[in-house]
Amino acid sequence: MQPAQILDNIQKHISVSQPEKELIESLLVLQRVPKKEVLLETGKVATEIHFVSEGVLRAYFTDREGDQNIVMFAMNDWWITDMYSFSTGNPAQLTIDALEDSVVYSLSKTNLEFLFLKVPAFERFFRILMQNAYVREQSRIIQNLSMPAEERYRQFLTKYPQFAERITQKQIASYLGITPEFLSSLRKKSNA
Amino acid sequence: MQPAQILDNIQKHISVSQPEKELIESLLVLQRVPKKEVLLETGKVATEIHFVSEGVLRAYFTDREGDQNIVMFAMNDWWITDMYSFSTGNPAQLTIDALEDSVVYSLSKTNLEFLFLKVPAFERFFRILMQNAYVREQSRIIQNLSMPAEERYRQFLTKYPQFAERITQKQIASYLGITPEFLSSLRKKSNA
Repeated sequence: MQPAQILDNIQKHISVSQPEKELIESLLVLQRVPKKEVLLETGKVATEIHFVSEGVLRAYFTDREGDQNIVMFAMNDWWITDMYSFSTGNPAQLTIDALEDSVVYSLSKTNLEFLFLKVPAFERFFRILMQNAYVREQSRIIQNLSMPAEERYRQFLTKYPQFAERITQKQIASYLGITPEFLSSLRKKSNA
Repeated sequence: MQPAQILDNIQKHISVSQPEKELIESLLVLQRVPKKEVLLETGKVATEIHFVSEGVLRAYFTDREGDQNIVMFAMNDWWITDMYSFSTGNPAQLTIDALEDSVVYSLSKTNLEFLFLKVPAFERFFRILMQNAYVREQSRIIQNLSMPAEERYRQFLTKYPQFAERITQKQIASYLGITPEFLSSLRKKSNA
């Protein structure tokens, strides 16, 4: 296993020595996730966090009407889990599956806690990851409350052009909390 | 200054030595924030994070219609800032003000970074804070997408009974993203 990509990602934020790199590598588990395969299911406990090396994954929940609501996408260099379940040990609210054939490096909670003890800088890395995730979610709440759907769609395309190319309009609509029909009418309007 | 409360809060998550405690205390600045006083204004850069010792604060943004949307409340033992602005140095999207006469301990970004270097466990403390904040915001997104307003109101009362006693119905409505009139009709219904 040569998870150079994940170490590059980590080293954008912290410096790690050669022995620390080897320790980190030794705790990561490579997993191939074919398209449509489920990595975490609602109701199970999330015991791992996944670094996406290839492909695209999504996290969603199914509401009472049976509709899927996408909470996040993840592609190269993103980390994904149900953080509520991972933190608390309670059952996951989200299901995570692959939208394309994907490759992830998985780190168990036990090994993550072990890394925090053995590589103190890893705590800094994770603090930065969590801080960025908090900012992202809070920005999303502010946008949902303040921006019309059309503008949120445009912002999504600007902020995540790499997702827009690889996921369906239906999936984008689900993420934005609007119907696919409404998104389609927005797109027609902006092309007119 | 005797910020025992803040050290108790920190020591729920990490252990700190006596010299570390003294260092932390020396970097905190006590601020009295009278009711309605603004601690951070939209458009300014958030250079401090505030630990609420007494009182209640809120963070809100004003949308294009001029309506105030409350993004968070904070009372004893909560930390509050505009994390987007604090992290990036960009202008704040939020305004933070006091809903009651309040007392906060403020920590500047420079001093926080200094603490991360001098007290490595403080990085852990902050990682946990940010992880909890991320989980809270994500849960809110899931609830907004999946629960009717009535249920979100009930959940809010259950989860934050201490806020419900000290803030107005109008403020709760703003946090839930509904009109005060609609909240009033929900309350009448549930009392009926």
